[in-house]
Formats: sequence, structure tokens, C-alpha cells
Amino acid sequence: SKHELLLAATYIEDARSGWKLSLHFDPSPRNLSYYLAFRSAWGKYLLYLVLAVHMALALFEEPALRTLQVNYLYPACVELFCVAFYVYRCLHLLSFTSHGWFWKDVKNLAVISVILLTIIDIVVFMGMKETGAVGGVRWSRPLRPLLMINIPESRQIRRAWRSVSRTLPDVAGTMVLFVLNLLLFALMAYKLFGSRGLKYANGRPYFSTYQDSVFDLYVLVTTANSPDVMMPALNASPPMFLFFVVFVLISLYLFMNVILAVIYNSYRKHLKKDVQTAVAARRLLMSRAFSLLGRGGAVLRDDYVRVMAVLRPEHGTQLVDILWRVLDPHGDGMLGERDLYQLADLLNVRVTEVKDRVTLLERLFPSCFNSRPAVLVRRVVRQRPFRLFFDLLIVVNAITIAVDADQAEWAFLAAFILEILLKMYAFGFREFFDKLWNMFDFVVIGGAFLISVVRASTGLQGNTLVLDVLLLFRCLRVVKLMDSVAIFRAVLRTIASFSRSIVTYGGVLFCVFYFFALIGMELFADRVMWAPFRPGRPTDCGDRLLKDTDFSRLQYCANNFNSLPAALAVLFELMVVNQWHVLADGYAAVTTQWARLYFVAFHLCCVVLLLNIFTAFILEAFILEF
Amino acid sequence: SKHELLLAATYIEDARSGWKLSLHFDPSPRNLSYYLAFRSAWGKYLLYLVLAVHMALALFEEPALRTLQVNYLYPACVELFCVAFYVYRCLHLLSFTSHGWFWKDVKNLAVISVILLTIIDIVVFMGMKETGAVGGVRWSRPLRPLLMINIPESRQIRRAWRSVSRTLPDVAGTMVLFVLNLLLFALMAYKLFGSRGLKYANGRPYFSTYQDSVFDLYVLVTTANSPDVMMPALNASPPMFLFFVVFVLISLYLFMNVILAVIYNSYRKHLKKDVQTAVAARRLLMSRAFSLLGRGGAVLRDDYVRVMAVLRPEHGTQLVDILWRVLDPHGDGMLGERDLYQLADLLNVRVTEVKDRVTLLERLFPSCFNSRPAVLVRRVVRQRPFRLFFDLLIVVNAITIAVDADQAEWAFLAAFILEILLKMYAFGFREFFDKLWNMFDFVVIGGAFLISVVRASTGLQGNTLVLDVLLLFRCLRVVKLMDSVAIFRAVLRTIASFSRSIVTYGGVLFCVFYFFALIGMELFADRVMWAPFRPGRPTDCGDRLLKDTDFSRLQYCANNFNSLPAALAVLFELMVVNQWHVLADGYAAVTTQWARLYFVAFHLCCVVLLLNIFTAFILEAFILEF
Ligand code: NA
Repeated sequence: SKHELLLAATYIEDARSGWKLSLHFDPSPRNLSYYLAFRSAWGKYLLYLVLAVHMALALFEEPALRTLQVNYLYPACVELFCVAFYVYRCLHLLSFTSHGWFWKDVKNLAVISVILLTIIDIVVFMGMKETGAVGGVRWSRPLRPLLMINIPESRQIRRAWRSVSRTLPDVAGTMVLFVLNLLLFALMAYKLFGSRGLKYANGRPYFSTYQDSVFDLYVLVTTANSPDVMMPALNASPPMFLFFVVFVLISLYLFMNVILAVIYNSYRKHLKKDVQTAVAARRLLMSRAFSLLGRGGAVLRDDYVRVMAVLRPEHGTQLVDILWRVLDPHGDGMLGERDLYQLADLLNVRVTEVKDRVTLLERLFPSCFNSRPAVLVRRVVRQRPFRLFFDLLIVVNAITIAVDADQAEWAFLAAFILEILLKMYAFGFREFFDKLWNMFDFVVIGGAFLISVVRASTGLQGNTLVLDVLLLFRCLRVVKLMDSVAIFRAVLRTIASFSRSIVTYGGVLFCVFYFFALIGMELFADRVMWAPFRPGRPTDCGDRLLKDTDFSRLQYCANNFNSLPAALAVLFELMVVNQWHVLADGYAAVTTQWARLYFVAFHLCCVVLLLNIFTAFILEAFILEF
Repeated sequence: SKHELLLAATYIEDARSGWKLSLHFDPSPRNLSYYLAFRSAWGKYLLYLVLAVHMALALFEEPALRTLQVNYLYPACVELFCVAFYVYRCLHLLSFTSHGWFWKDVKNLAVISVILLTIIDIVVFMGMKETGAVGGVRWSRPLRPLLMINIPESRQIRRAWRSVSRTLPDVAGTMVLFVLNLLLFALMAYKLFGSRGLKYANGRPYFSTYQDSVFDLYVLVTTANSPDVMMPALNASPPMFLFFVVFVLISLYLFMNVILAVIYNSYRKHLKKDVQTAVAARRLLMSRAFSLLGRGGAVLRDDYVRVMAVLRPEHGTQLVDILWRVLDPHGDGMLGERDLYQLADLLNVRVTEVKDRVTLLERLFPSCFNSRPAVLVRRVVRQRPFRLFFDLLIVVNAITIAVDADQAEWAFLAAFILEILLKMYAFGFREFFDKLWNMFDFVVIGGAFLISVVRASTGLQGNTLVLDVLLLFRCLRVVKLMDSVAIFRAVLRTIASFSRSIVTYGGVLFCVFYFFALIGMELFADRVMWAPFRPGRPTDCGDRLLKDTDFSRLQYCANNFNSLPAALAVLFELMVVNQWHVLADGYAAVTTQWARLYFVAFHLCCVVLLLNIFTAFILEAFILEF
């Protein structure tokens, strides 16, 4: 029947794309149509849009950039609209799934909790604002990333997130051991150096309290205060240096590597389980599809054609036929359960139906296209020397860019445009744009050409943004060279092959950044004020407590939490780790010593855990690749 | 015959220990006896001693610590003695191995080259010194580590070294790609920022030349100048910050992880091959031993006993019997070739012959030992609460140490001594000292007791060295707690199980450090002079060119190359990476800009290559463990 066909197509499509939701509802026609509406592309993109708007609200909420500052009511109202949309999505989900599953699934509970907390938060905050009470805090805002992680559409991000959260118990023992090791060394350092009255080069007392000793040694494990932390001891008594050598060898080179190894091990273990779960779910979906389509233990060709018409209405008969032949290599006219399994994988393979190999030019001007000079040009373009010549030209161009020989630029641009045109002519548009490198070339050269023309025709000179973009476009030409060398190509292809997963980790990273940024904005907004950067003449960033600290000496006033972009920039700097203790000590100076905890927590979450898991991911991806 | 027995025993012993040299000579009685002399323990230890003396010469050669400075003739003469010893070892090796093998083996050629170069260097240097010529350089000194790597005795270090050198070709492509990426970003940065007239917080011009741009971005990949390198751009125009974000994401998080992944992959590949080679060599040795011992395709028990008497004269008949039973589980009285293979592994298992289970006290005072209170005490000691009580006591002691409650120390010391005595009494000396933790306890508590007694009896108060050691001994007690928690124990055991390999990597690291230290001493000795550390009042370290640089502001005068220990300390700081550009710029200021190359080369060799291989080793060790 039509319903069964649609249901089978849904199961197959879910097996292909990795959705597991269709396993969790009773497949009545009503439920199925609700589910298909839920899973539809417009629903997905609308949800992404609402999420993006919701996350972006932090740009307009206090503290905001001065140019983006609006009355608090606007973002609050927009947030209520977003929440209303989430409620609608939840109700939609609830309308077709079984209630038993819905209320047991942690993801749904998380979304509903965040929705409730957000509503409470907004109402309380509005109430406090309207009654003029002081100290209203929008405390639900850091929870927003939870929505991003827990919606059914973000399977990929959730998978990366799971690999983070499931690694935690495995690595906990090693982490605690590391902390104990740190506490012990801090005790020794405090006893060894604390009573000698030594000072750092900047005048700070040296290991004068136990808390400072713990913090300074933790910073040393992140290498951020090396070798400054060793200098007073080295100067007072050179053998004391050995204390730091032993500490660094054990804490940095041994423990940090062991933590990475434990994380890697745990990652591998869970990856295996993940793959097994995914395969099992796919099997289940495909066997359901089989039981719907199969007659007498096999799927007949007619049923296959009918389900493909529902599944891929855009596929031509030819393509459907080719797929059938792949699925049924023996040609006995029927598919067993195992044969059908392959369909889910097969649909993931990108197939281009080559409808016309004749290029546009050939069709329009056949005689000219097939004349001898034209054929010769096409042959030359396809040969190696042509490519080498333009590679050489790029190198020469890079040198002229480096030595500011701008007058040659038009010639180079013309040459590269000619290259593109020749290639288009020789390979045809379709084949030309099928290659990513050609696309890249087209954008970079075309962009540079456009900007140059606009500049020349309007006589713009001082517009730095246009100039900067043009300059970047010029420099980026060099990237094309990397495709010319075989080893580079191999490395780049490997990286490209897991670029999608890298983007997924970027999503997890964004969630962590957003969470910490909003907390940091609540804690530290307007504690450090921006001040003009004046090399050699430090300012106190609007707080006398920062006078004569490394924070003000290094002119870190721009590293503040006074808006979302600024906070994200600070967190990025913290992720790179270096000088994070200067930032931490700066914020500790203008608030309390407890402020250091925020920075340590971010380091542990982002660097020790997340970046190590990313390393584990790259390691495993490379091993699976080779 | 006796010779055949000795030869078989030699093959088996070589298969056990991993020597492969016995495969490379004609096994005549004369050659065999020479080989056994070459492989003997005294020969090995004498060689180690000579190597240690040779390496230590750098302490006395110029530049040396003032207290160790001697006339250049003394170290040169000692070095000649060392070289004479190496020549003797080479001749010894040549006396029994086949010449074809000797002159083809790269290791022997390396040793002979270093010997020749050292002799030439010494003669030339002495000649120049005696004739009063200036500028004599002992350029052969950095080659000394090659001796350490290439002697037949350092198989382990060579294996680690091989894993470094064989990784190079695999990682070269990625490294070149990384460098190109760096050069491209440097070009962009130079174009974007160079013409804006920006300055760093310390007044240095910002991306003002292409060379500086490359160096500054390379330093950023090592994270050492973050976020300082971003601050001028961030202050001048916040969106410029994105340039650094993109650069860091690609160069640090992507490329550095890919380099680690490539190194890890290469390490795994070569490890597999290494193991296969070692197994093949062992098989060959054991099959030779079998063909010597076997009669009619099997080794009889009598022959086994005879060869064991040569191989392990110290083993009792009981132990030899047990080993036989393991090798011949069916009890058919003969060993096949495969059975014999196991002997090589079996001999590596540490076996303790328990000759007497009766403790000393039991033998001396049997009635007292077996009285009811004595039995009760022994039972209590073996129980969990006893252990928990003393664990708690350690925690309390750690707190008293932290809060300087020194008056309680004698009580704690007495308690811990009592614990040790009770344990010795309950378990017997032998069983007590069989456990590493008990040994540790004995040394830490016994040492603290001894020092305390000496201090109390002689009334010493101001001796800081004694006090420091005592203090460290006190703090180290806490380490014992780690054995009490199961998770910690698991991690510590894993680490302990590959501690021997870690020491091997330490050997390779020492070779690299020694090499770079001696080159650094030739290049930079006495360019930076030590000056007293005066917090808040920078000095110029004896060179006006350093005035107002970060090097002098941070008071890095002690980071000089004026003696071997100082140079090693600087290299250690470079290995930890942070602030390495301040050191590099300091030495560039007092010499030339090319000095930066030395520091970059060390970073590439030590951090990018060696430390990543160490990480690969830890990763693989963990995977094989679990
Ligand atoms: Na650093």
C-alpha cells in the first residue's frame, strides 16, 4: 500500500542519514506524516535559524558593544519567541512519538528544563527590572548551548560531545593523581622557597603562600610562566633548578602525555561502541524496511522501483537501474535482506548523472571548436608544462607581492584570468567547476579582478577593507601550489576527508566558549576598561588595582569581558594558553583571588579535555585513513 | 663438546638479551672466547665509565664553571685516553667479527669517523694553542653523543634513536607543508600589518619586515608570544584579530595535531617492523642453538642440564628442573625446536628461589615469636585498619608540615618508624623489602630519622642543604598514599611498566641536549654575563645591546651558555618552549639575527620531533597495556 511504501522509504532514508527517531514511534499514517513534517528540511533550517538568532542575542544583551546596545526588553522578547518555537518543536515531537520514550529521553528532558529555566529567568529578570530592584542577573543564558547540543538535528555535535563526556570518568583517576602530584610539589616548593624572601623579576613575592605555590606550579604545567618561575631559584642557588626539572618532567612530560593516552584510549573504546550502536540501529531500520517491502523473503524489482520513486523522485530510470544492478549482482531479479542493507550505504555515494558530455562551446560553434588550432590549444592546456608554467608564475607573483612590486599586478591578474579561461575552454564548464581547486582559483582570481576593477573605476584609494581583502586574495593564490606536489596533496586530502568532523568539534568548542563567555561576562563585565594602546606607556585599564601589574604593563586592556566578541577573544587567548596567568591575575586583582578558578576551570575543560579529545580524534582519523 | 655447549649457551643468552652480534662471526673457539670477553660485564661497565668521563669533560673544557676551570691540556689528554679505549674496543670487535660485516656496518663506521675526527681536532687545537694562534675551536665535541648511540652496548638508546630518524622522511612532507603555510600567513601578516606603523607593547615595530613576520608567527605556533602578538592588531581594529584566529586554528590546532598523527603512525609502523626483526633474529639464534644441542631432532634432558650449567651456573637443580617442566609440559623427556624457543623468554622472567620461609626472629626466639600477643600483633599489622590508620597519619602529617607545626614532627617520625618495625616483624625482612613501596618508606623515614638525629646531636641549625633534604623527605611521605587507592595504583603500575623505555628516551634526549649545548657554548659563551638578580631593577647582563630588551627586563642573565650546566639549563627552558623567543631575541641582539636559527633548530628537533615521538611512545604503550 502507499503507506507501507512511504514507511519503508522513511526507514531507508533514516538508515542512510543516521536518524534513529523513526524507531521510537508507532508507524500509523498520522504519526508518519507528522514525523515527515518534523524531519523536513524547512523545519531543520528554521530551527537552525532560530537557534542562531537565540545565540546571537548575547550580542545585544548587557554587556554589549556600544553600537549594539538596546533596551533589555527587545532581546528578552525575541528570546521568548525563540522559546515559543522550541516549545512548538517539542509538542510536534510529542505528537507522534510514544510518551514512554519522550519522557525518558535525557535530550528531551534537557531541552524542556532549559526552556522552563529560561522562562523563569526572563520573568524574574523583567520583574526585577520593572520594580527597579538592583542586581538582576540573566543566569539562564549560559544554558543556551544545551539546546544546541540536545536537539534531534545535532546528532554530529552530540556525538562529539558524548565523546567528551564519556571520557571524563576514564580520565578522572589520572586527573586526581595529577592534582595530588601538583599539591605535593607545591608543598615542597612552598617549604623550599617560601621562607627565603625571594621575589620574582617583577617584584611579586616568590612561593610565599601555599595557594600561590599551587597556582604557580599549575601555571608551570601549562608552561605559561616558564622560565620566569625558575629564575629566582636559579639565581639564588643553581642546584634548586633541579626541583623544577623534576617537576616539569613528571607533571608536564609524563602526566600530560599519560592524560592524552588515557583520553585517546577511552576515545577509541567509545568510538568502537558508537559505530556498533549506529550499525545496529541501521540494521534494525533496514530490516523493518525489508519486512515491509519483501514478499516471500525477497524484494522484487517492481517494489524496489516503487520505493525508489518515493525515496528519490529526482533520480532517472537509468540511475535507479544502475543501483539495482549493484544491489543484485547475480541478476536473479530479487534482493535478500542482506542485499537491501547495502542500499543505505549506496544512497550516500554521490552520483552525478552525466547527461551531456558535449560542452556548450562545442554545441554553439562546432566547426571552430574542432579546428586544428583549437584542438592544439586544448591539448596544450591538458599537458604538464602548461600547469608548471602557471605554478612558476604564482611563485614569481608571490615574490612581487613580497617586495611590493604592485605595478606588475595587472599583468599577473591578466595571466591568471587567461589561465582560467583556457581551462574552462579546454575542459568545459562542468568539468572545470567539478574540481574544488578550480573553484578556489575562480573565486580568488575573480574576486581580485572584481575588486581591482571597482577600485580602478571609482578611484578608491583609502578604503582599507577593500584593499585588505584584495591583498588576501592575492596572497591566497599561493595556496594553489600545494595541489601541485604529490605529498602535499596526500596530506591535504586526508585533512579534507575528515573536515566535516573537524567542523563538528568546532561546534562543541563554540558551545564551551559560549558557556564560559556568558559566565565571564556576568563575573567580569566592566571590571577592566578598554584604553588606547600606547606602546611603552602602560595604562591601568580604568582600575588603580591594575597599576604596575603585568596585565597593564603588557597593555591587555582590550582583553575584557565587556561584550560577547571581546569575551570570545579572551577565551581564544586562554585556549592558546600562553600568558593566561597574567589575565587570571589581572582579573583576580580587580575582583578576588577566587577569579583564578574561572580561568583554571576553562583551562581544564577546554585545553586538557577538549583539545586532547580533538587530538585523539585526529590521531584515530589518521590511523583509519592509512 | 665443550665448545659447542659454550656456543649454544652464548646463542641462548644472546637471544634472551637481544644481542645480535653473535650472528656476525665465524664461531671458532678463538672467536667465541674473544666475543665472550667483548660481551662481558666488566667490559660493558668500563665502557660506560669511559663514556661518562668523556662526556663529563665538557664540564672542564672552556667555557667551564670558574671552580672547574683547568688548563686545556688536562681534558685533552683524558680525551685521548678515552679515544684510545674506543680504539681498543674497535680492535677487539674487529678481532673476531668478519671483516665484511665490520666495514659495512654503519655503527662501526660512525664510531671510527668520530674517533678520527676527534684525534684530528685535538691535534689541530693543541697545535694552534701551542703556536699561539687565535680562534681555536674544539669542533668535534658535539659529535661525542654519536659514540654513545653507536656502541653495540646501547641497543635500547639506538632503538629509540632509530624511531626518531626513521620518522623524519614520513613527516617531512607535512613539515614542508607547514613551513609553506607559515610563509604564506607571514606574507599576509606582513602586508596587512606591516605598513600601519603599529608597535608592540614593548615598543618593538610590528610585522615591519618579512623575516620578522615569519619568526613572530612561528613563535605564535609555539604559543610563546600569545596574546602579545595579537594585541596591537586587536587594538587597532578588532576584526583583524580574526587573522590570528584563523592562523592559530590552522597552524597550531590542525597542523601540529596532524604532525603528531603522522609521527604516531610512522612510529607504529616502524615498531611493528622492529619487533618482527627482533623476533627473526631471536629465532635464528635459537635455531642455531638447537642445531648444536639437538640430537635426532630433539634436545634431551641431559644436554639441557649441561647447557644450563654453563648458562646459569648459579641456578640450583630445583630451578633448572622447574624450567624443564615448563618447557616440556608433556613430559616426554625431549624438547623440539619450538619448545626450546621458549627458553629465551623464560630466562627473562625473574625467579626468586625461596630458600627459607622462616624469618630470622622466628629462628632466634621461637617461643616468643609464637606467643599469643605476638601472633595477635602480626595479625593486626596484616589487616586493613592498620594501613588506613597510618594513611590517615600521613595526611595529618602533611597538614602539620604545611602549617609549619614542626614540634609534632618527632611524634610523627616515631610513629612511622614504629610502623616500619611492626611491618618488618610481621612480614619478615625478605618479604618486607620485596615490596618497592616498603623500600621507599624505609629510605624516606630512615633518611629523615638519620638527618634529624645528626642535626639534634650536633646542634646544626643553619645548614640549609641538610634541612632541604630533610624537608623533601618529609613531604615525600605523602607519595605513599598513592599506593592506597586502586585507580592510582593502576595508573602508577602502567607508568612503572614502561619506565625503562622512558629512561631510554631520556638517553636520546641527553644526546640531543649535549649536542646542542656544546654548539651553543661555542656560539654564545660569554656573550651574556651573569649578574645579580635584583627584582624590579633590570641589568644589561654585561652587554649594552641588551639594555631595555625583554631579556634584561625579565632578568634572564643566568640563562647563558658560559658552562655546560648553564647551557643545559637554557636548553631545558627552550624545551619547555615558553619565552624561548625572548632568549632567542636576546642572543640575536648580542650576536646576529642568524642566532635565531639555533633556537628554531632546537625547537624543531627537540619539541616538534623528539617530544612528539615520546608522546607517540606513551600512546602506543598505553594501547598495548589495555
Ligand atoms: Na607557552
